[in-house]
Amino acid sequence: MNDKLDIQTHVDKLSTEMRRGLTVLVVMSQLNEPEYAYSLLKKLEEKGFEISQDALYPLMRKLDEQGYLNSDWKVDESRPRRYYQLSSLGEAVYNALKAEWKEQFEQVIHIIYQENEK
Amino acid sequence: MNDKLDIQTHVDKLSTEMRRGLTVLVVMSQLNEPEYAYSLLKKLEEKGFEISQDALYPLMRKLDEQGYLNSDWKVDESRPRRYYQLSSLGEAVYNALKAEWKEQFEQVIHIIYQENEK
Repeated sequence: MNDKLDIQTHVDKLSTEMRRGLTVLVVMSQLNEPEYAYSLLKKLEEKGFEISQDALYPLMRKLDEQGYLNSDWKVDESRPRRYYQLSSLGEAVYNALKAEWKEQFEQVIHIIYQENEK
Repeated sequence: MNDKLDIQTHVDKLSTEMRRGLTVLVVMSQLNEPEYAYSLLKKLEEKGFEISQDALYPLMRKLDEQGYLNSDWKVDESRPRRYYQLSSLGEAVYNALKAEWKEQFEQVIHIIYQENEK
């Protein structure tokens, strides 16, 4: 039962949960310049951050609705595309979230690597 | 609308989501020695990792059910307490998850701090 395959299955599930928590941060980090949903998907893929269309597209709409993004249709290309970019609120939220993330991971490093100390 | 208070409210919500993804990792990191639920809660609190009883206790039962923990009642103290400690499966999962987490944060550092590069 407890063979390597088994362990990997357990870890995959847990690490997906960890990754999910980072998605907003990662997506926002790429939107200091205009991107349409598919270009952003490809950009993230190239950088090794896996996210499905089914997860990314609703997230972009949600971030847009919350006022973190400005969005505009561009119709001068082969087909109309909606471009998204951080709004000024989005930029402020992103910068604060980045600082928060940094604090969290420093804390976790501290907790994990001092796990045996009292 | 977009004042500092507003931004903090936005960030709090998002950073809670980030933190949630780390909870299993952090909890497991403390269970290489036996802890009962309340002692673990206090230990995490001391190390600055905020988690409520309502979140921690069901999580420990879940980890126990999944076979990541061994648990035992100790009745020789002022009152009976259930002690939890990583099982050998739990240890293997924790070590793999720790490696995964390290990979994820290195990836995020890379993505965030090269955000303007093509």
